[in-house]
Amino acid sequence: MLENLIHEECGIFGIFGAKKAAELTYLGLYALQHRGQEGAGIVSSNNGKVYQHRGPGEVNEVFSRKEILNQLKGHLAIGHNRYSTTGASSSVNIQPLLITYKKGNLALAHNGNLTNSYSLRTSMEKNGSIFQTSSDSELILHLVARSKKETMEEMIRDALSKVKGAYSVVFNTGNSIVAARDPHGFRPLALGKLKNAWVVASETCAFDIIGAKYQRDIQPGEILVINQKGIKSPFPFKPVRHAFCIFEFIYFARPDSIIFSENVDKIRRRLGRQLAREKPVSADIVISVPDSSNTATLGYCEESGLKYEVGLIRNHYIGRTFIEPEQTIRDLDARIKFNPVRGVLKNQRVVVVDDSIVRGTTSRKLIKMLRNAGAKEVHFRVSSPPIISPCFYGVDMPTKEELIGSSKSVEQIRKYLDVDSLGYLSLPGMLSMHSLNGRDFCVACFSGKYPTKIEENSGKYVLERKSC
Amino acid sequence: MLENLIHEECGIFGIFGAKKAAELTYLGLYALQHRGQEGAGIVSSNNGKVYQHRGPGEVNEVFSRKEILNQLKGHLAIGHNRYSTTGASSSVNIQPLLITYKKGNLALAHNGNLTNSYSLRTSMEKNGSIFQTSSDSELILHLVARSKKETMEEMIRDALSKVKGAYSVVFNTGNSIVAARDPHGFRPLALGKLKNAWVVASETCAFDIIGAKYQRDIQPGEILVINQKGIKSPFPFKPVRHAFCIFEFIYFARPDSIIFSENVDKIRRRLGRQLAREKPVSADIVISVPDSSNTATLGYCEESGLKYEVGLIRNHYIGRTFIEPEQTIRDLDARIKFNPVRGVLKNQRVVVVDDSIVRGTTSRKLIKMLRNAGAKEVHFRVSSPPIISPCFYGVDMPTKEELIGSSKSVEQIRKYLDVDSLGYLSLPGMLSMHSLNGRDFCVACFSGKYPTKIEENSGKYVLERKSC
Amino acid sequence: MLENLIHEECGIFGIFGAKKAAELTYLGLYALQHRGQEGAGIVSSNNGKVYQHRGPGEVNEVFSRKEILNQLKGHLAIGHNRYSTTGASSSVNIQPLLITYKKGNLALAHNGNLTNSYSLRTSMEKNGSIFQTSSDSELILHLVARSKKETMEEMIRDALSKVKGAYSVVFNTGNSIVAARDPHGFRPLALGKLKNAWVVASETCAFDIIGAKYQRDIQPGEILVINQKGIKSPFPFKPVRHAFCIFEFIYFARPDSIIFSENVDKIRRRLGRQLAREKPVSADIVISVPDSSNTATLGYCEESGLKYEVGLIRNHYIGRTFIEPEQTIRDLDARIKFNPVRGVLKNQRVVVVDDSIVRGTTSRKLIKMLRNAGAKEVHFRVSSPPIISPCFYGVDMPTKEELIGSSKSVEQIRKYLDVDSLGYLSLPGMLSMHSLNGRDFCVACFSGKYPTKIEENSGKYVLERKSC
Amino acid sequence: MLENLIHEECGIFGIFGAKKAAELTYLGLYALQHRGQEGAGIVSSNNGKVYQHRGPGEVNEVFSRKEILNQLKGHLAIGHNRYSTTGASSSVNIQPLLITYKKGNLALAHNGNLTNSYSLRTSMEKNGSIFQTSSDSELILHLVARSKKETMEEMIRDALSKVKGAYSVVFNTGNSIVAARDPHGFRPLALGKLKNAWVVASETCAFDIIGAKYQRDIQPGEILVINQKGIKSPFPFKPVRHAFCIFEFIYFARPDSIIFSENVDKIRRRLGRQLAREKPVSADIVISVPDSSNTATLGYCEESGLKYEVGLIRNHYIGRTFIEPEQTIRDLDARIKFNPVRGVLKNQRVVVVDDSIVRGTTSRKLIKMLRNAGAKEVHFRVSSPPIISPCFYGVDMPTKEELIGSSKSVEQIRKYLDVDSLGYLSLPGMLSMHSLNGRDFCVACFSGKYPTKIEENSGKYVLERKSC
Repeated sequence: MLENLIHEECGIFGIFGAKKAAELTYLGLYALQHRGQEGAGIVSSNNGKVYQHRGPGEVNEVFSRKEILNQLKGHLAIGHNRYSTTGASSSVNIQPLLITYKKGNLALAHNGNLTNSYSLRTSMEKNGSIFQTSSDSELILHLVARSKKETMEEMIRDALSKVKGAYSVVFNTGNSIVAARDPHGFRPLALGKLKNAWVVASETCAFDIIGAKYQRDIQPGEILVINQKGIKSPFPFKPVRHAFCIFEFIYFARPDSIIFSENVDKIRRRLGRQLAREKPVSADIVISVPDSSNTATLGYCEESGLKYEVGLIRNHYIGRTFIEPEQTIRDLDARIKFNPVRGVLKNQRVVVVDDSIVRGTTSRKLIKMLRNAGAKEVHFRVSSPPIISPCFYGVDMPTKEELIGSSKSVEQIRKYLDVDSLGYLSLPGMLSMHSLNGRDFCVACFSGKYPTKIEENSGKYVLERKSC
Repeated sequence: MLENLIHEECGIFGIFGAKKAAELTYLGLYALQHRGQEGAGIVSSNNGKVYQHRGPGEVNEVFSRKEILNQLKGHLAIGHNRYSTTGASSSVNIQPLLITYKKGNLALAHNGNLTNSYSLRTSMEKNGSIFQTSSDSELILHLVARSKKETMEEMIRDALSKVKGAYSVVFNTGNSIVAARDPHGFRPLALGKLKNAWVVASETCAFDIIGAKYQRDIQPGEILVINQKGIKSPFPFKPVRHAFCIFEFIYFARPDSIIFSENVDKIRRRLGRQLAREKPVSADIVISVPDSSNTATLGYCEESGLKYEVGLIRNHYIGRTFIEPEQTIRDLDARIKFNPVRGVLKNQRVVVVDDSIVRGTTSRKLIKMLRNAGAKEVHFRVSSPPIISPCFYGVDMPTKEELIGSSKSVEQIRKYLDVDSLGYLSLPGMLSMHSLNGRDFCVACFSGKYPTKIEENSGKYVLERKSC
Repeated sequence: MLENLIHEECGIFGIFGAKKAAELTYLGLYALQHRGQEGAGIVSSNNGKVYQHRGPGEVNEVFSRKEILNQLKGHLAIGHNRYSTTGASSSVNIQPLLITYKKGNLALAHNGNLTNSYSLRTSMEKNGSIFQTSSDSELILHLVARSKKETMEEMIRDALSKVKGAYSVVFNTGNSIVAARDPHGFRPLALGKLKNAWVVASETCAFDIIGAKYQRDIQPGEILVINQKGIKSPFPFKPVRHAFCIFEFIYFARPDSIIFSENVDKIRRRLGRQLAREKPVSADIVISVPDSSNTATLGYCEESGLKYEVGLIRNHYIGRTFIEPEQTIRDLDARIKFNPVRGVLKNQRVVVVDDSIVRGTTSRKLIKMLRNAGAKEVHFRVSSPPIISPCFYGVDMPTKEELIGSSKSVEQIRKYLDVDSLGYLSLPGMLSMHSLNGRDFCVACFSGKYPTKIEENSGKYVLERKSC
Repeated sequence: MLENLIHEECGIFGIFGAKKAAELTYLGLYALQHRGQEGAGIVSSNNGKVYQHRGPGEVNEVFSRKEILNQLKGHLAIGHNRYSTTGASSSVNIQPLLITYKKGNLALAHNGNLTNSYSLRTSMEKNGSIFQTSSDSELILHLVARSKKETMEEMIRDALSKVKGAYSVVFNTGNSIVAARDPHGFRPLALGKLKNAWVVASETCAFDIIGAKYQRDIQPGEILVINQKGIKSPFPFKPVRHAFCIFEFIYFARPDSIIFSENVDKIRRRLGRQLAREKPVSADIVISVPDSSNTATLGYCEESGLKYEVGLIRNHYIGRTFIEPEQTIRDLDARIKFNPVRGVLKNQRVVVVDDSIVRGTTSRKLIKMLRNAGAKEVHFRVSSPPIISPCFYGVDMPTKEELIGSSKSVEQIRKYLDVDSLGYLSLPGMLSMHSLNGRDFCVACFSGKYPTKIEENSGKYVLERKSC
């Protein structure tokens, strides 16, 4: 995707039964870094004791010295990479959250977004609860602690039965790892094995780095308990229609991952092929907006027979750029991300494949860059339909007003982007690409039809609070 | 005091009605730095919004750049300097604590130690509460949030009626400052005025630095509400016998402060005089263990007629010293703190005045240093009685077993320290020194008699948890 | 290239005549980040005054706050990205070097490696010179300062006439920018224009980011002086045969750059094509070792008609990894860089195209990964000949002994890598690919024939010195 | 001294023949911290290899982790605490400076200021030398390297014969420590012994912390070479009249040190006594401006029979205070340093003893504070004469124009300070206090008569250069 406007909020990881579990968690988080670069943390356990380290920044910054990992003892650990969706950007929000409650310590790493957090929080506050973070994950911990059930597992089940929306979670209870996924299965969560140790992770690329083998997905509605007695897997919730986030396939997940039991690269390739079938164009070359659109672009080329070229170089050392030079540099924010390869583009009729369009502002600048680099024609192809509605299940999108797809027609967008032609993949086309049943996906951002009720004030409980 | 083994846990500060309240709070915390160097924080408010910044280290380190203070907007602010007593050393424990609850935001800065925190916490956990810090201050916030009362003031009153032990607290409710002191009045808390602004602080030296005028103490059992309507001061609790911490006079407070309505330097001077009357000795010079014993030493000299000398130089750039050189350096930890002035000590009969003895280990090394520097005789005088019992009201002392005064007789201590004579101030002698009624003080560390019931498991709820 | 064992030492940048020259230099260095990530610096000038900031790390880390750039005033600036070749890793070596000498201040940014530094340094030391860095760039400054010539330009010319080997340099003299390139032209250096300002940079991608237009290369043997009078360009040195570093085309330069007057991507594409002609193979798919080999791989596909696939995902968040987990994770260092896409590789006959092989150790691990991911056959193709000799002109290579190409035959390397077939591009094939005369290139690393005499003790003057 | 306007530039330390020499150097620097807090560094050596670490800040900040010291191997080391006098505040100036030259590595730690640096530097630059620091210490290294002599010792001797002004230096030659002091002996330098190791340090308090015994001073004009063969001590220079800096006794040195073979506290005490004899006053109490004036104040009390009191508390946590509150806080910069003890001062006739007055601005604010705290009369007594001329030998003073003593009469100063009486110690009175011959001291700052010729442009070679 061209713009950095959509973010998956988190990567989560858990491991039980390995020496130096924290080190393996560190590697897992490192492989999941693309799911969040704002903060990271690990909570490990050794015989009921807990050890934690959390901090702002990328995994390598947070765990910058060997000694930090050495202090995170124990054979079980959970970890979290964070991109904040709901909740202000404050170090108090960095996960895993760790609390004490009647049963001892409990830590939680959460990916997804609850849709009834406002009413839950309001009702808890009425009953005297206090909140120290602005994260909806804290709600889950409150619910566990308030449960009248006897055992830890039942308490977690009880808590999860009260929250609605999207959650893939992993708990560290001090002696066990509990992994769960909401009944709709919005967010991915996979189970792997490394010798005698069990591993869970948002994507299987986190298994690959440590040499673990993918076993299966944690199922929608499953609560998986892993401890010294082994692995136990109740399915406490009434089955509901699945709602796997299609955006994971389109943009978030790494192409080398398996999510929702599918190879991401295969799906992404098929999206590109279908796009070529639906929106062909006469052109000389096809280029990708690197890196997220590379695979779809290859699919487009295969189907269309057009030539694949590397026409844009992505700058990988990108950080925060605070520069606004005195001299106005035209399209600086696009330039900082990409540079066109003039030799490739000059006098060519160019098809640019991107995975999606959010606001369109950076796309527009990119297209100017391509034209300035000599492209004779620019045809924009998008391997997903227009985004018309925001996500309430954990993807941080701009408001409906800011989504260019919600207010403008395709022709209007084409004019805004100043391209010779613009083609989006159709919604049916997109859904036809999966070996899974199309009905199993959440496509709310493209259709405006949400698979669950969305609470009126969703996301409103974040009081005005600012940390620095 | 020679050893860094006793620490007052905190300095607290609050201000209402001043422009850039956070800057004045910064200065106040800076003057209160001696009460805690482990962490600091400020929560300011502007029209109900809250702004916070907290971090580990000294005030100057935490607020290292002007921009940080600039972001803490508003005309009211509270601040906290922390030395952890109960609660592991973790950044999550740095105060002021800030929560959201049914009424909005609430921040708390707390000095002191509750004595019923174990039972409160256990009972709250039974009811499903979760705890994110290991600080007993979090309990107070839970109690406020759980109160069924209508108004903020009543809720705070309700909460404080349930906690026992020592607390001087200041709340930032977003629109008001609420300052309170437990009915026994263990910890100091003073009220000052700076033009139209009201100020509260642990010690009046924090008023001096900003030019505020001391008005009076917050009274034991008083809850003072300061907001735009003015100042309101209910005394909701049944009066009980006061129990002002005598150790504030002996060691903690700065000599330039007024606490418990008394000038610290005056009291401290009188302690030295009384010590001279009780434990005279024939000697050439009197030296102080700088800086905390300087004033008492002057008193000793005045009364005894002996000559005051500067025989020890304190190293002010002290930090964490991780050095254990290959070569054993005799008494390195004493050397790192102090250096004897040989020219002063050589061939002299020396009286050393210190304010207290805790474990005795560093004192012993110091005395060796004095002897190596040429002192002919060393007479140790202590401006307080032997410490025989730990404190449960907010002073971080070693266990009873580690307190040299609890297990050894004065003669045994003398031998251990290897001094020619050793003299402690007597308990009656100490109490006779105050213009206040002697019965108003807590002298539990010297007498073993605690003014309140101490809960069996006090301090036990800190689960094993380690942060790095 | 698979291994991080070869590094171009530096990127250099200079600008004259622009407001906030330091900001533009920052952006230029950012685009040149791939040429060095160990340290960065800028020296700007304003009316003869100089302002500097240098530090270890990437450009974004060194210039982490707006204020730092704001302090670097002036309309002229030079900058440097550093990867140390000769010279220990010490912050004192970070460039631009800044000295004072008889004419005032002088700063230097240098890319390349001198070949007579040992004798120059020895002879200077004999004459009483001192060296504060272990960089050969300091020698150039000594030579400028020692010149008996009158004008700055003559002094620089005089100095450069005494050094041998590879240098592309840019000086900040306080009032002018002086850019020069050694007579062989080993390292690239381009001249650009941004409105009224002149810009020089190692690669043109640094022009693109600020919107400057490429004008021409600084010519081998040219000394270009840019100041308020305009641009002046003496060619003081006797023309010699050119020796453009072919490795810039093969690996270093960004494909979107023009160097040596050629589009990098075009050359790289042709290398891939020629490789396909020379070393065809029957296979199902062709994959690249991303990102440096992407363009050559496309060329290979074009020529061979084989299918281009994305079979390896590169981890872009890579940092220093200090982890050596208790559990041996097979091939961890390859895993940390790349992850295979199983769905792409499974049961396929795979051609892997890489730009070069240095030691072969990481390549071997990568190939294991591919096999573990299901590749049926692995055919390794290298878009350059075997590296048999180290570089003395600024590329940091292992010793001859460590170069797998210097001691093993192609068949032996094939066995070591455990591939089904291995094919290198031939030396004549490589040279036939350029529109430039093949004789204009330095191919010493492939041929062992150095275009200049190499001093016996080249690189030996680095005394044992360690900074931490 | 009240004002932070005068600074000794440096503390230096060297040790030969001890295991983990760097650790002992660290401790020595720690004890010498009062001589410079801007930067610190250590260069150790092991069999000719050198190891260095330098950085900005206090010793504890620069050497913040055990591993840093562990990497500084070897049995010999030198160290430096820096306060910049000549030379801009830049990390490149932090000492020890380390160079390579014809004999290998050479490191230098320098205390003092050369008076012929401008002409030396100019003449060296004419001969083609380059300078990378703005420190005059770099000159000494140039001179050593340029010497035509054969041996290291002769080269150092040769170099030192060419510089004029003040220097106490210690070199690390890789295999030996060379300590030297200029023929006038402006700055102190002492020799100590720790078992078989030899130690040199600016003050003996650095010996005390590691348990070393003071042996004697390095003599003016002595060059002491310490290596495996033992200790050798040529006196190469023609004896000249000594010029020990009297300000070391008045202000700089710690009272527990021996410098110039005298106990600092004894001299300082005598200054206070003589002051009482010369400038008696009828008063109730005498207070010190802590801590530098404490000892002189005691002397004043002894002689006058007046009562010693602690009337000012110094804030020891002082750092950089960047605060300029919106509300004008009267005399904030004095308040940040000191707080008056009201109980001591109220209604008293107070004598304030300070060691010197530089600009008078902070003194004036301090006196206001004392009056606001209730002092009935304030009598200012200064244990040294008026400062009328700047120092060129290493003390960083304001310009002559800024020195209040140079332009105002004592009565004018009294009025400016707003004190009831003002008394300075007389120059003859000051000099009578020493067991040393009064002619052995440099009193130029009080007399305007410099013991050496001062070069016209002294300090002028610092070109405009700014680092950030």
